[in-house]
Amino acid sequence: MKNILVLGAGKSATTLIQYLLHNAEKEQWNVTVADFDQALAARKIDNNSRGKALAFDVHNAELRQQLVANADLVISILPAEFHYLIAEACLQHHKHLITPSYVSPKEQELDAAFREKGLLMLCEMGLDPGIDHMSLMKTLLHLREQGANIHALRSFCGALIAPESDNNPWHYKFTWAPMNVVMAGSGGTAQYRKNGKPKYIPYNRLFRITEVHLVNGYGEFEAYANRDSLPYIEKYGIEDIPTFVRGTLRRKGFCSAWDALVRLGMTDNQLLVPQNAQFTYRQFLDAFLPPTSIDDSLSTKERLAAFLELDDDSDVMYRLGWLGLWNDKPIPMTTDLTPAQILLDLLEERWQLHDDDKDLIVMLHRFDYTINQQEHTHVTTLVVKGKDPENTAISATVGLPMGIAAKLILQGKLSMSGVHIPIVPEIYDPILAELKTLGIVFEEIVA
Amino acid sequence: MKNILVLGAGKSATTLIQYLLHNAEKEQWNVTVADFDQALAARKIDNNSRGKALAFDVHNAELRQQLVANADLVISILPAEFHYLIAEACLQHHKHLITPSYVSPKEQELDAAFREKGLLMLCEMGLDPGIDHMSLMKTLLHLREQGANIHALRSFCGALIAPESDNNPWHYKFTWAPMNVVMAGSGGTAQYRKNGKPKYIPYNRLFRITEVHLVNGYGEFEAYANRDSLPYIEKYGIEDIPTFVRGTLRRKGFCSAWDALVRLGMTDNQLLVPQNAQFTYRQFLDAFLPPTSIDDSLSTKERLAAFLELDDDSDVMYRLGWLGLWNDKPIPMTTDLTPAQILLDLLEERWQLHDDDKDLIVMLHRFDYTINQQEHTHVTTLVVKGKDPENTAISATVGLPMGIAAKLILQGKLSMSGVHIPIVPEIYDPILAELKTLGIVFEEIVA
Repeated sequence: MKNILVLGAGKSATTLIQYLLHNAEKEQWNVTVADFDQALAARKIDNNSRGKALAFDVHNAELRQQLVANADLVISILPAEFHYLIAEACLQHHKHLITPSYVSPKEQELDAAFREKGLLMLCEMGLDPGIDHMSLMKTLLHLREQGANIHALRSFCGALIAPESDNNPWHYKFTWAPMNVVMAGSGGTAQYRKNGKPKYIPYNRLFRITEVHLVNGYGEFEAYANRDSLPYIEKYGIEDIPTFVRGTLRRKGFCSAWDALVRLGMTDNQLLVPQNAQFTYRQFLDAFLPPTSIDDSLSTKERLAAFLELDDDSDVMYRLGWLGLWNDKPIPMTTDLTPAQILLDLLEERWQLHDDDKDLIVMLHRFDYTINQQEHTHVTTLVVKGKDPENTAISATVGLPMGIAAKLILQGKLSMSGVHIPIVPEIYDPILAELKTLGIVFEEIVA
Repeated sequence: MKNILVLGAGKSATTLIQYLLHNAEKEQWNVTVADFDQALAARKIDNNSRGKALAFDVHNAELRQQLVANADLVISILPAEFHYLIAEACLQHHKHLITPSYVSPKEQELDAAFREKGLLMLCEMGLDPGIDHMSLMKTLLHLREQGANIHALRSFCGALIAPESDNNPWHYKFTWAPMNVVMAGSGGTAQYRKNGKPKYIPYNRLFRITEVHLVNGYGEFEAYANRDSLPYIEKYGIEDIPTFVRGTLRRKGFCSAWDALVRLGMTDNQLLVPQNAQFTYRQFLDAFLPPTSIDDSLSTKERLAAFLELDDDSDVMYRLGWLGLWNDKPIPMTTDLTPAQILLDLLEERWQLHDDDKDLIVMLHRFDYTINQQEHTHVTTLVVKGKDPENTAISATVGLPMGIAAKLILQGKLSMSGVHIPIVPEIYDPILAELKTLGIVFEEIVA
């Protein structure tokens, strides 16, 4: 009997927990799901006799130690900043660890310690990062075996909404951590490589520099650069590639409207708007509009259009108006809030996933390369549609790679130790193969 | 005999140390100046028998305790983040403390502790913050006594360069901490009040929203909003004022050119440009320029002008060109550097204060008010010119208020205790009076 400990039972845990419980009988597993909200953990386990729900506060060191000590393998889907604490406990009690998050520099430094104890800390095991690394590396290896000289590689992913559930002008709804969507890109300057040179895009221009890509049967998407692409040049072993960028996909039109919110400054998550300002949404918008020499009799909407240098009836103005940005409705505030929090509250109302909504995952890798002086393009796409607002495509694509990896580790089929991400065939071949049987299938177009 | 401890001997300490030593004999003071660089401290003391130079590392807790224990009063002009450590030592050893920096929320929480022990922690005792509070409050009190109903108050200050030393197109040279100039405004959204409503300006638009003000005999200056003005509405006791803003002054034209650097993203101090990128300045600039659909044969300069939507021969382009932004010179790098550090190195060469240069301090408060339904404007200006690159106007205006305050405290003429800023007549009346005798004199224009 093996014990799997899952820390965190939030949105992206649903499919993972289902997968583990589904395999528990055959694999002789017990699955403990620990969350701050024990009821949430219990709901995800749904009375399965192989599962146990626990209340868990990551700051409770004693409980942390105890839970990890009793497990054979730990999967942490807690907020990324807590993985390090869990990794320390895993080292102490000799346990393997899986996370879906980007490896932090501090976590990377644990490599030697994990290696020494013959333990594996497998990170970036979700969708993006995760399935993106796996599918990209598989195609890369395939193209190299064909003697391809790759001169451009673009890797994009987006958590979006299925066409049949797409009924708003942003073509977007929240399918995962909403605040992460509001703050997307604000952490620093995006970096990538173009024509052999680094390119830098500060947050204030991030949503203005986009590329449009077509996905068979799903129409056009736009991609903006995601964080720092440069470290992956080395990780993917493509040091000499002239052009490389990782990016995030949105439906066409999203980025230019979001750019307006960034330019206004409404994604600021530091300054506190005092509750006693008693703002309406229009007054809140007014606070960000620059003083204007234009006639003061202009409406807020007209002044916004002037600031954005757009027509009143442009697509961007339509999207902003749909949010209610110049409504005379009071902003509900029971405490001081940051602009990002005010925006979040408004968006959560507008971009809510309804009972009959299905989400959509879109991933696209585009390889431009030559073989024998002949130009080729290889496009790999993945489209996954969710079942319902609980059983989402994002939950499946984030959770299943971790579940399959857990199985491989417990079956003794992954022999490596240290801190790793899934960029070697030993990891990605069996995972991609099983994902295929679970309906997560890439489509390849070579031209 | 009283012992004054001065922590920090940098640029803004020069006049303070001179003032203290000048008064030391008469007042029976010993002055200990402690700096990481003992030689720098010794140079500032210049063999005065009343002075003593010590090597000091703020992280050395024992030495910190020992020095504070031996003093009767402490003046900390260390970087602001260290004042709290010094304040704790002052509380422990029952000493008064003076700093030129903004009171942090954490320092403000020490108010009760200082009060309880009958000790004074006097903060914001430099130029800005410092002399600005004092002169503004004096005029405010005066106008109130006249029955003025003030509807707008603007308070601006700038550390600039004297007209006779102004020989570059930015009309600017570094006269204090250069990195603070490069990072100015990047800490968050600027806030102020206009027509009764809060106004927010994100960093990405900060240098685009400016007001021009005229100073008699010195021409035009432009002001941009400085940090968060709103807390000073309460501190100044002007809760009902419709319009209030604190700002920073630059020579006309500076802000629009600096705005170009902010829009490009060159003031980012997080991302690391790898040394092995072997950039020239032109390539560095290229890395920030967005991909363009414009003919690729355009030069970097032409693409920059297109990005900024400016003519090649505009003032902004002239200023950027003067910096050498599109030179083919390699950037000197002995390690990875942030864009802000690369920019700083370049600016330190271009904006260096030369041996015969004089700096210039300009401060301006503008009060718009009514008395008996009559509109009035009261403008208070201060212009101080430095003597040379060592004895600067900024060193005088930052240092002298602290020196005078130290004298008042040690003479027992300031009876208050707790954490304070200089907004009450008991503090500012004697200080402004002595500053006047030292040539720091405000000019008043009432219209």
